[in-house]
Amino acid sequence: MGYLLGMTAELAMQASSTPTLHPDGASPDLSVSAAPDAPALDGAALARLDRWWRAANYLSVGQIYLMGDPLLREPLTPEAIKPRLLGHWGTTPGLNLVWAHANRCIRERDLDALYVAGPGHGGPAVVANAWLEGTWSQVYPDVTRDEAGMTRLFRQFSFPGGIPSHAAADVPGSLHEGGELGYALMHAVGAVFDDPALTVFCVIGDGEAETGPLAASWQSTKFLDAARDGAVLPILHLNGFKIANPTVLARMGEDELDALMRGNGWDPVVVAGPMEGEDAAAVHQRLAAAMDACLDAIAAIQAAAREHAAAHDGDPGERPRWPMIVLRTPKGWTGPGLVDGRQVEGTWRSHQVPLAGVRGDDGHRRQLEEWLRSYRPEELFDELGQPTPELLENATEGARRMSANPKTNGGTVMRPLRLPDWTGYGVQVPSPGTRLHSATGVLGEWLRDVAAANEHTFRLFGPDEVASNRLQAVLEVTGRSFADGPGPQDEHVARNGRVVEVLSEHLCQGWLEGYLLTGRHGLLTSYEAFIHIVDSMVNQHAKWLKVTRLLDWREPLASLNYLLTSHVWRQDHNGSSHQDPGFLDHVVNKRAEIVRVYLPPDANTLLSTMDHCLRSKHYINVVVAGKQPQHDYLTVDEAIAHCTRGVGRWAWASTDDAVEPDVVIACAGEVPTLEALAATDLLRRHLPDLKVRFVNVVDLMRLQAESEHPHGMSDTDFDALFTRDRPVVFAFHGYPTLVHRLTYRRTNHANIHVRGFKDEGTTTTPFDMVMLNDLDRYRLVMDVIDRVPGMAVRHAGLRQAMDDARLEARRHAYTHGEDPDEISGWVWPHGS
Amino acid sequence: MGYLLGMTAELAMQASSTPTLHPDGASPDLSVSAAPDAPALDGAALARLDRWWRAANYLSVGQIYLMGDPLLREPLTPEAIKPRLLGHWGTTPGLNLVWAHANRCIRERDLDALYVAGPGHGGPAVVANAWLEGTWSQVYPDVTRDEAGMTRLFRQFSFPGGIPSHAAADVPGSLHEGGELGYALMHAVGAVFDDPALTVFCVIGDGEAETGPLAASWQSTKFLDAARDGAVLPILHLNGFKIANPTVLARMGEDELDALMRGNGWDPVVVAGPMEGEDAAAVHQRLAAAMDACLDAIAAIQAAAREHAAAHDGDPGERPRWPMIVLRTPKGWTGPGLVDGRQVEGTWRSHQVPLAGVRGDDGHRRQLEEWLRSYRPEELFDELGQPTPELLENATEGARRMSANPKTNGGTVMRPLRLPDWTGYGVQVPSPGTRLHSATGVLGEWLRDVAAANEHTFRLFGPDEVASNRLQAVLEVTGRSFADGPGPQDEHVARNGRVVEVLSEHLCQGWLEGYLLTGRHGLLTSYEAFIHIVDSMVNQHAKWLKVTRLLDWREPLASLNYLLTSHVWRQDHNGSSHQDPGFLDHVVNKRAEIVRVYLPPDANTLLSTMDHCLRSKHYINVVVAGKQPQHDYLTVDEAIAHCTRGVGRWAWASTDDAVEPDVVIACAGEVPTLEALAATDLLRRHLPDLKVRFVNVVDLMRLQAESEHPHGMSDTDFDALFTRDRPVVFAFHGYPTLVHRLTYRRTNHANIHVRGFKDEGTTTTPFDMVMLNDLDRYRLVMDVIDRVPGMAVRHAGLRQAMDDARLEARRHAYTHGEDPDEISGWVWPHGS
Repeated sequence: MGYLLGMTAELAMQASSTPTLHPDGASPDLSVSAAPDAPALDGAALARLDRWWRAANYLSVGQIYLMGDPLLREPLTPEAIKPRLLGHWGTTPGLNLVWAHANRCIRERDLDALYVAGPGHGGPAVVANAWLEGTWSQVYPDVTRDEAGMTRLFRQFSFPGGIPSHAAADVPGSLHEGGELGYALMHAVGAVFDDPALTVFCVIGDGEAETGPLAASWQSTKFLDAARDGAVLPILHLNGFKIANPTVLARMGEDELDALMRGNGWDPVVVAGPMEGEDAAAVHQRLAAAMDACLDAIAAIQAAAREHAAAHDGDPGERPRWPMIVLRTPKGWTGPGLVDGRQVEGTWRSHQVPLAGVRGDDGHRRQLEEWLRSYRPEELFDELGQPTPELLENATEGARRMSANPKTNGGTVMRPLRLPDWTGYGVQVPSPGTRLHSATGVLGEWLRDVAAANEHTFRLFGPDEVASNRLQAVLEVTGRSFADGPGPQDEHVARNGRVVEVLSEHLCQGWLEGYLLTGRHGLLTSYEAFIHIVDSMVNQHAKWLKVTRLLDWREPLASLNYLLTSHVWRQDHNGSSHQDPGFLDHVVNKRAEIVRVYLPPDANTLLSTMDHCLRSKHYINVVVAGKQPQHDYLTVDEAIAHCTRGVGRWAWASTDDAVEPDVVIACAGEVPTLEALAATDLLRRHLPDLKVRFVNVVDLMRLQAESEHPHGMSDTDFDALFTRDRPVVFAFHGYPTLVHRLTYRRTNHANIHVRGFKDEGTTTTPFDMVMLNDLDRYRLVMDVIDRVPGMAVRHAGLRQAMDDARLEARRHAYTHGEDPDEISGWVWPHGS
Repeated sequence: MGYLLGMTAELAMQASSTPTLHPDGASPDLSVSAAPDAPALDGAALARLDRWWRAANYLSVGQIYLMGDPLLREPLTPEAIKPRLLGHWGTTPGLNLVWAHANRCIRERDLDALYVAGPGHGGPAVVANAWLEGTWSQVYPDVTRDEAGMTRLFRQFSFPGGIPSHAAADVPGSLHEGGELGYALMHAVGAVFDDPALTVFCVIGDGEAETGPLAASWQSTKFLDAARDGAVLPILHLNGFKIANPTVLARMGEDELDALMRGNGWDPVVVAGPMEGEDAAAVHQRLAAAMDACLDAIAAIQAAAREHAAAHDGDPGERPRWPMIVLRTPKGWTGPGLVDGRQVEGTWRSHQVPLAGVRGDDGHRRQLEEWLRSYRPEELFDELGQPTPELLENATEGARRMSANPKTNGGTVMRPLRLPDWTGYGVQVPSPGTRLHSATGVLGEWLRDVAAANEHTFRLFGPDEVASNRLQAVLEVTGRSFADGPGPQDEHVARNGRVVEVLSEHLCQGWLEGYLLTGRHGLLTSYEAFIHIVDSMVNQHAKWLKVTRLLDWREPLASLNYLLTSHVWRQDHNGSSHQDPGFLDHVVNKRAEIVRVYLPPDANTLLSTMDHCLRSKHYINVVVAGKQPQHDYLTVDEAIAHCTRGVGRWAWASTDDAVEPDVVIACAGEVPTLEALAATDLLRRHLPDLKVRFVNVVDLMRLQAESEHPHGMSDTDFDALFTRDRPVVFAFHGYPTLVHRLTYRRTNHANIHVRGFKDEGTTTTPFDMVMLNDLDRYRLVMDVIDRVPGMAVRHAGLRQAMDDARLEARRHAYTHGEDPDEISGWVWPHGS
């Protein structure tokens, strides 16, 4: 036990018994570059590092176990021990070790650096370091940097009313909670995009390294521009175990691990130890040498790339091989070696709390005390519980503190985008529903100029769909980022491109999150159905936004903006795998103050909506819009008014002037709006006396009660628009239950009849797709006949004719392979 | 143009210009093992392969373009061309190439093989091969294997009323749709688990290879047992481009790609071509040699492992390095080279339809005809349009056809599990609510015996949580699978273990899907909050289940079973990242006939539920249950009755005998049931005259209307249980809106007041957690007082006392770090 303990014989054996599978039979000596002839650290430097590490470890153990007597003035009493012991010790000493070493490098090189703790469960580590650096007390003045504050610091950890056990939003310097594993490296890479001065120390646990998102994110090397972007130094921390199992990366052969990292474009340096007979000093020396080597390599890479870029119009030249560190230290290092006769340090048994039942078990309590005293707190803290000056020799200052880097509180450095006036990009609409535009094609022109006007603070991310989604105008001002450079047949591919396209929604999302979290802006485009791939990442970001709203020292971020444009109603030939509008339901489950959903039906409303979203802060904005040529309905001025209201009656489509309507036809979404309008046209032709109110919804959350969502309409407004008692036939883009759920408290709810997506698609034409889902114009007319009192009897013939028209339209499609002209060529014939 | 075209100069340049970054400077000669001195194929064998490939390519192009004259009896007319051209040509020739070669190997080695088409967008390929093998016509008798059938085959593809453009469920031989990318290799690996005779040819596109799930699944090498499992031969098909971008894996250096694959435990053979001056024959020779080499290596690996296992109690010995193929061929190979002056073959421009507007553009139509005729259809099909005998020389027979392997229609080979009688594992419940058990701990004993009784057909999957979730009894009969074998400190880790634990929900899900799709059974355990990670995979599997229900030739599979046991109400110290019950909402969005949600409140109901789930077919069963020691409520017999009904009144907790209740207290879920019972206890003490009906819901879908879900209660039954007009206070495990959504058509809906999860958790104690979410016992009592007419005035004092009790309980927790005894030690004091 104790921090000076070397790697156990078993651990050493385990490390050496890993199979050697390299084909050429040679076992590469990986630690060469980290074991120079002269030690990296002199005695004083070594002592500084070790003191910091001991202090952070002491404070970490204290957080897990203690609620009193933080300086061990007395032998530990049961009362000083928390009744519930929670937290994750296993990863913590490694996190502290890296922090201590990063501090040395920051001081020596004046680095602008931040720290991403992939093993975010090691919350005690990041909290301890923030306290040592004084940041915790700045942000939470009641937790002073002295004995009283230390008591609070210990007590609050994983304690009722206190802080979670993770590197959560509460922790200054954290921009990554790490509760759900897989996103550390993405966040780190997103953070350095367009920030050439920044270095991120990114610790990745060997548990996290098994996840898909993390496995993919090693390929970030292909999307970093060494000239324009900063650098990430990944530290793959292999302590060998997850909760109860060995880890894949820790057990593969050294040569396999080396190949894996090299194959992903990295140049790994392995730091392992302590070996039998060594103490921690040996690991300090090796890690310090490795960090110096890596940071030297990064500096050289950046210098070369920047020189190349200056001479070659921004092109940074050949992709470099970025350095990284593989750090092999025992799990729970410096913790109890044996507990009740079983090995704990260096095994999965130290994953959480190595000593259990400490309050009641005198032996365990003595062992805890011995463990704590092994860090020699008397050398670290003075009589008042303040860090000693010697300890603080390893501290960084001001904004150089990783716990206080303003970029980890992105809102403080975020500047609004310079947005060109979107109205200059709007389309002319001489008469509604008669001319076609691709809404996203129109948006692309504006986004091009947004990208041009904000070349260091705005990026477009997507799974290879920017052009497919008609946003290709953006490529006129910047290329698609690809560090391996353009090939002969590539178009708009550039090593310094700023449109980021990779076939991984996870990477797109994670990079964008990192970019936003450090104060920049962006937009993610995706297929609507496949955005579910990042459901859980959206959850985690939404939680981050929710919690940070409550922390007055955190400033709001730019919103996370989605443009879902290959939407479910246009997936006819793709079949059911591409059809699922449930992402809307997923985000609506998030806190109301965080989530906005927009369904602009045409080009001008899409422009207005995106302009609003890119100006907004601290939301998740989901915009669903069409990319296929589609009717324009609203002029620029009308779009401004309509989008400002979020929902409204379209006068030119309504026939209820000065009277109560017989029926309200409502719609939300590109295709539903088209079908609802076509149904309204049919009603006007066949039932000219019927008073129809036509309502379009752009801002979906307007439907919800005022009490439940900040955008919610008042009941008065809702009743005025949707009436208190008239039938409402609602054509909706998503699953119908969502509209019911949003409106179920409304007066007229029982009369709202929703047609939406039913998962019935198969290979078909667009119109057959809406017909299969019962959202077609003819069905909507039938719904009106069925629901307006008295009509079913009087208009049985029309109802039958509508049903015949549906079947005839389907028969046409099945025979000819396309919709009949009266459907594909329909226009709104009644003017404005 | 034409299939004989060699690799273009540009492509060759591109291949040779990839950077060489191997540290030792040596560029490994990767194709050595694939370029033997003597050609792998003699002339006849080469001709056989090439004929098949040409035929499949011809049929693929026909599907994309033609709706008439499939044998080109006349020059192509506009009427023979489909009006909408849909489909993905780019990947298709590669898929056909691999199929043709796999057929040769199957014939020569009598392999039991199936084919996973990762680039599932290449639907024309798998459809074409199924038709050539006669399977399509067996399954769809109207699509005969002759000219009339060929017309139907062509016409139906991506045509209204026809089939999707993917390797969808409609395609015999497909168990993997490939619409959402990332899961090919997982499905392939899951398919070979416990099936030593099976070989899966798994084609992975370079687009898919960029996804996180696919990147992680290369590590499947660590979870394959060469003795007990079959083999996967991955064929990484690099054609260089995605939709509009180059791909990461195709552009990295050969040495990097080799390192990446070796680092993941594979032994890659590269087959590239055609090089300048070569024709397809050269690629055929190299691919045939590579396939033979790989299949020889697999046979040798399996023989050695099986010998070792026989001598070592099932241990297969050291992890082998599995062979794989990297296949570099031009995108859209054999398609149009130049179109309108631009290179299409070998570029991203051939991703979908290389020739557009073919109906109206005479030049393009001539080019299409030339392209089709380049396959020399007259050599492939006779006058009747039937495959010639020479063509069929490359066919496989009966169940050896990959399109007809019964394992791709898993229900046909699936046998029910042998399930021990669960009632023997039930706990004694002398009096409800007085004794504690870990429900999952009890379940573990039964699962142990399920695993023992079904050692080739049942597996447990999870992200390292089997022990943490108290199911460790299973480890008494089989270990945790880990091909790198146990280390000194590992427990229950074995190379031939059948509990599959990896820190990737994606891998767990994908492997289990592959296992189920091939006719076996399994269970996935996970944290409730993190199961959102696989939302989109669940979508895709649900769609597969939905579609296959409609195909009478597909037999039902075993259900996909989830046990979510580290649920959201027990994440107090973990903070908000671990708190999200929204997976229930996500699955309820799926088709009603597919989805079941169970919330058993104690050990016996959990046993009964899991027994039911493991017997069920073709569902997605989501079971949420507690792992912490929790009260037992129902005896085995009571649990049987209660779970059979799915919802019911608990008589011993109710006081409405022979009278209408004043209030219904309903609950669903472990923690809500506890709080609802404790509230009922408080009501009985303080308001002994109040008539309370206590209702517990196990089967959530019972709440839904009979018309909407097969499990839905009739309105009569619902009204009888929940009354037509009495207040219902409902304590619910998930988000409250879900109960509203399920019940909104019910008579009494307006009186249903739901308390559920609100995302308010922070670091707290279990009781504080329920209090923060307003679901605690005191709040429920206050709800009753607020809602039963007349009580608010009469019992204002009691209401205040309840509120005081809440605050006092919180104060206790915040002071002492644990809940007060009256809460943590509460038992149901009223007997049964």
